[in-house]
Amino acid sequence: MPYTIEQVKALVREFPDFPSEGILFRDIFPIFREPEAVECLVGHFVERVVGLGQRVDAVVGLDARGFLFGPLIAQQLGVAFVPVRKGGKLPGNVVRVTYQKEYGPDVFEMQADAIEAGQTVVIVDDLLATGGSCRAAEELVAKLHGRVALNAFVISLEGLEGRKQLKAPVYALLEC
Amino acid sequence: MPYTIEQVKALVREFPDFPSEGILFRDIFPIFREPEAVECLVGHFVERVVGLGQRVDAVVGLDARGFLFGPLIAQQLGVAFVPVRKGGKLPGNVVRVTYQKEYGPDVFEMQADAIEAGQTVVIVDDLLATGGSCRAAEELVAKLHGRVALNAFVISLEGLEGRKQLKAPVYALLEC
Repeated sequence: MPYTIEQVKALVREFPDFPSEGILFRDIFPIFREPEAVECLVGHFVERVVGLGQRVDAVVGLDARGFLFGPLIAQQLGVAFVPVRKGGKLPGNVVRVTYQKEYGPDVFEMQADAIEAGQTVVIVDDLLATGGSCRAAEELVAKLHGRVALNAFVISLEGLEGRKQLKAPVYALLEC
Repeated sequence: MPYTIEQVKALVREFPDFPSEGILFRDIFPIFREPEAVECLVGHFVERVVGLGQRVDAVVGLDARGFLFGPLIAQQLGVAFVPVRKGGKLPGNVVRVTYQKEYGPDVFEMQADAIEAGQTVVIVDDLLATGGSCRAAEELVAKLHGRVALNAFVISLEGLEGRKQLKAPVYALLEC
């Protein structure tokens, strides 16, 4: 049975005190148990991208949960999917950024030939929290002289003000 | 332009001495730069699954590279996608197995309500090496009283004899 986007939102489950006390974890995996819900979610993001009215050359997805729907969105758009991974996981020439996390620096990388100068991309991830990892992805795209048209998330934790860290516009399906 | 499966195989790049000396790393990400190649790869796996002649209820994918094509395969089959993740990343009730890696034990988990007793699944990952992580996924499915119909990989390193560790049949696109 086809899902509406409101029904997809309702599949996101809340788990208080996970992974640690005081954290309210929102679980997107129930969406992936329902292929019609995934179809609705992916179609929803594709509409947002098409609605930009710009040529988009690639979807950039963050390891690991951005890998879940990044390729699905890229396939519907008929464009490349490009991964961002933690340092040391991608072979060949890479561009790299270091960003500060709560407990120290973290390194993100993208393959240097993944995006060509002048190309436009959309960055996707499941969750916008403090914005650090997505900001790192924006910087990687900039290092390859690409342009970010949109940062798209399933969930945005508005209280953490992650969108203030980001240069490109933000779309989030669920604003919490 | 449509890709043949031989052209998809040819996109896999080899990087000697990555991530450490003596390791020949095979990089599947060039496939994801070509949407027609992804379509061919996913269609190829879907044909293998349909060819089993069995009802399949879910595709199980291993974090992180199994997340890249697991949902694509699940969507074409019209079935659920179920993730296997390292310990502590999945909320709610989980089943858990510990397996020995080179440098110590590693824990894999699956959500306990992700598979129902009696369901049949296909496990997908990019690489079959020693078989440890896929064996752990097979055990997680067994703990939920599910059945594995097939373990499907893009690449199998035959010299490491990973398939001997696995109970269910193995299909690999590239046998190296």
